[in-house]
Amino acid sequence: MAATATEAADTAPEAVTVIGLGDMGSAIARTFIERGYRTTVWNRTAGKAAPLAGAGASVAATAAEAAAASPLVVVCLLDTAAVEQVLASLGDAVQGRVLVNLTSGSPAQARDHARWAGEHGAAGYIDGKIMGDPPYVGTPNIMFPFSGSEQAFRAHEPALKELGTVAYHGEDAGAAAVEFMAQVAVGYELLIGFLHTLRLVRAEGVDAEEFAGRVAASMAGYPPLLESMAKAVKTSEYGPDLGSLNVQAALMGDMISHRESLGVEAVRMREVKRLMDRRIADGHGDQGFSSLFELLPPRA
Amino acid sequence: MAATATEAADTAPEAVTVIGLGDMGSAIARTFIERGYRTTVWNRTAGKAAPLAGAGASVAATAAEAAAASPLVVVCLLDTAAVEQVLASLGDAVQGRVLVNLTSGSPAQARDHARWAGEHGAAGYIDGKIMGDPPYVGTPNIMFPFSGSEQAFRAHEPALKELGTVAYHGEDAGAAAVEFMAQVAVGYELLIGFLHTLRLVRAEGVDAEEFAGRVAASMAGYPPLLESMAKAVKTSEYGPDLGSLNVQAALMGDMISHRESLGVEAVRMREVKRLMDRRIADGHGDQGFSSLFELLPPRA
Repeated sequence: MAATATEAADTAPEAVTVIGLGDMGSAIARTFIERGYRTTVWNRTAGKAAPLAGAGASVAATAAEAAAASPLVVVCLLDTAAVEQVLASLGDAVQGRVLVNLTSGSPAQARDHARWAGEHGAAGYIDGKIMGDPPYVGTPNIMFPFSGSEQAFRAHEPALKELGTVAYHGEDAGAAAVEFMAQVAVGYELLIGFLHTLRLVRAEGVDAEEFAGRVAASMAGYPPLLESMAKAVKTSEYGPDLGSLNVQAALMGDMISHRESLGVEAVRMREVKRLMDRRIADGHGDQGFSSLFELLPPRA
Repeated sequence: MAATATEAADTAPEAVTVIGLGDMGSAIARTFIERGYRTTVWNRTAGKAAPLAGAGASVAATAAEAAAASPLVVVCLLDTAAVEQVLASLGDAVQGRVLVNLTSGSPAQARDHARWAGEHGAAGYIDGKIMGDPPYVGTPNIMFPFSGSEQAFRAHEPALKELGTVAYHGEDAGAAAVEFMAQVAVGYELLIGFLHTLRLVRAEGVDAEEFAGRVAASMAGYPPLLESMAKAVKTSEYGPDLGSLNVQAALMGDMISHRESLGVEAVRMREVKRLMDRRIADGHGDQGFSSLFELLPPRA
């Protein structure tokens, strides 16, 4: 555990406040307590604070009192509406504090909070998002993208690193939410596609769990592919990744017919086929999958 | 290299025929030659055979002559139409031969070919699909799912293993194509979702390659998740994977708004949100993502 410069001088434990004690907020507070931080907590309904008090946390009577207790104030609530309610109740208590908001929300909301924090004399606003589940807090297996005031982030980076693997995405307070939404979107695309394909697999009498094991084994091939696709997109130099579109479009046609014959949905496959056919018609049939990027909205 | 029982007795090199010398067929023929197989090749346009002849292959004048030359006949053509044309030209040459068809095609087409092979006195039909690119032939980094006659597969498994990592999916000749189409579908779902999300990332001013590197790093978390989701689907016991649907639906709403604000497509996100809302309305808001399976077509 590291501390800010002032505190390091007198070796007093660093103080941190956690506002919001749902599963995630509680896991965060517990981690700080276990790592020796002087931890103050507050929750709208008081019952959630009891186990943490038992573990050594100070329980504040109000959110403002909680914020006043520590230079670092971590907010982890259900949604942005809850954040706005709590912020409105803080008043001057936020003055000189670094506010770290880990609540789910959009980039625009993060930017709004940063503006609010600046207007109310906070020492800095850091927006963070959480990629992982409460049991992983305090391990490297949970990711926290952060963005906002770099000075504030660097001052409190050691404390934030207690929570998991952290990354700083720049001064734009919305950047962590952008990273989160983009990463999570890729995950959801994979997972809903996987679920639909489990319908195909089941319709064909294949064991879903065994199939999943084989998909899991083949996942190792995707990281380098994703990186080379992003490079192709960045440079607009599209090699025949996954084979030429001429060949892939034929395969896609087979896949659509197969899915339709089983009553399995084929929304993405039909979209991909349409995009491939357009690229081929435009004379790019020798290029690969990543060249479909050129046809996706919003066009530059 | 192993050989069939008869051939092992006199230690003559095992004979194999490769019909179709596109990039993939040529890579296959070349691998057999390099591993010491007595290799006969044929291609509709003769020019493709020349480099292989230089490497030691015998070039047959017709597909029938090629098939007659070896007990194991590997067919790797552009599409099913090409396969049907070649099969029609084989006549009696297929008698007593094991036919391995690696051409892209549907499960139904594979079953048709198996029926044809049986009717024409073949010693067995094996359907195979190829997950990987020609440069990887002969290495473990290319996967070949096979299905069809198990007796024929086992007899020629050592030769087929020369080509890459092989797996046998059962007597149903269509099973390899099912495996291929299901595995490839999951890949395409991931990759088209990734491409759309690169539009989001670019619209937000984030470097596409750096983002891809971070997605690549986070891919390690997906294999265990896919396996636990398949288990949930198989047992219909849906824990709160990825969090409860109540929480996820709120996140999904944020993601849709964000994508729409940038003009990035949100087809899957809207579908997922709709499915989540239906599950919640049905009283399953405490379950997780994999429970959406219950709403996907075809319903049991």
